Amino acid sequence: MKIGIIGGTGDQGLGLALRFVKCGEEVIIGSRDVKKAENAVNLVINMLKSEEITTIKGMTNQEAAEEADLLLLTVPLQAQMATLKSIKDHLDDKILVDATVPLESCLGGRPDRYVDLWEGSGVERTSNFLKDKNVRVVSAFNNISAASLTNIEENVECDCLVSGDNQEAKLEVMALAEKIPDVKAIDCGPLENARIVEKITPLLIHINILNRIKLAGIRITGLPPRK
Amino acid sequence: MKIGIIGGTGDQGLGLALRFVKCGEEVIIGSRDVKKAENAVNLVINMLKSEEITTIKGMTNQEAAEEADLLLLTVPLQAQMATLKSIKDHLDDKILVDATVPLESCLGGRPDRYVDLWEGSGVERTSNFLKDKNVRVVSAFNNISAASLTNIEENVECDCLVSGDNQEAKLEVMALAEKIPDVKAIDCGPLENARIVEKITPLLIHINILNRIKLAGIRITGLPPRK
Repeated sequence: MKIGIIGGTGDQGLGLALRFVKCGEEVIIGSRDVKKAENAVNLVINMLKSEEITTIKGMTNQEAAEEADLLLLTVPLQAQMATLKSIKDHLDDKILVDATVPLESCLGGRPDRYVDLWEGSGVERTSNFLKDKNVRVVSAFNNISAASLTNIEENVECDCLVSGDNQEAKLEVMALAEKIPDVKAIDCGPLENARIVEKITPLLIHINILNRIKLAGIRITGLPPRK
Repeated sequence: MKIGIIGGTGDQGLGLALRFVKCGEEVIIGSRDVKKAENAVNLVINMLKSEEITTIKGMTNQEAAEEADLLLLTVPLQAQMATLKSIKDHLDDKILVDATVPLESCLGGRPDRYVDLWEGSGVERTSNFLKDKNVRVVSAFNNISAASLTNIEENVECDCLVSGDNQEAKLEVMALAEKIPDVKAIDCGPLENARIVEKITPLLIHINILNRIKLAGIRITGLPPRK
């Protein structure tokens, strides 16, 4: 499966690229500027300390969207709509995973506060914008910090809370998330439940600030053992 | 320290009473109806399988508020204001811990959805109502399920997320929470952060429903080791 990371030059995108390349997936980093995408590719290769990696490349967002099978949207909220507009004609029959978090910092405010969006959540905003397109939208990776993803020598001590209305797409994203060592994917129900999941991130950021750390995450406990 | 559980005959109140009596605290269960409070006391004593317990008693909510040092408010949202009105003259110099969660089920809706409150959260509604009183309001115990608390043979596999504007009161509540075996108390910052903490509960309820369990909880990961 080819994973296209749209807006993949930011911390979150880079971190996910690192993790997915490391576990053997084929990754395309997308950016508005192909040079930035190529720089990000080099950064990933350097961080993995291997020059033999051929499973990652950089492209424009449109090219990445066209070529990949599954897309991860990792842009800040203020770039969400413009980015979606630029790739909307390249999404046919694909899964789009939105990791957007509506932090107040997107509006010049604080990263430990959320803003309320008309649609209820960032991912529902995406889903609403793409409602006439043949694309399955899933919410995931919102709570896993970039610091944790890029801390490549360590496993990721955080669950991946996944919400979506298409069960098949959700299961595919959950399986992908669990390729990252120690990540457990948790089915959180329909897409609208991302209203809660997205809001957990500013709380984790607050806990990070209070404790002068960067790796706060969450685990869901009390689940039955897996079959 | 005497702990008064206001509205202590519901599942959450009973569960907290059980845990605090078990760890040696003095508990007063409050109810509008003193007979209901006394029935709840008998239930706790039966569940702890010990007739020698003398550290729990039942009273009206007003009497419990007057006698206790620290109060836990464990009523459903629709009873929050009426209950606070009934005890507001008995709160001088005390800590009031609000465990209210604004579930849609309080309005005849679903327990896995939240409702938005004007003040931002249930505990801020309490704090606003009591703003002229000499009482320190803290948010805690929102995410720990009644099922987990009443499952008395097992430890509680859930962190206690604590928010509050008075650091001293918050630390006192955190220390109290950690008397419950395996509970870790997490400082989540100011009272307004309960806007997020309270919303996590309907997500845990959704995860419970999806998995046909009752014990879903959360742990915060990535924290530095304690000194």
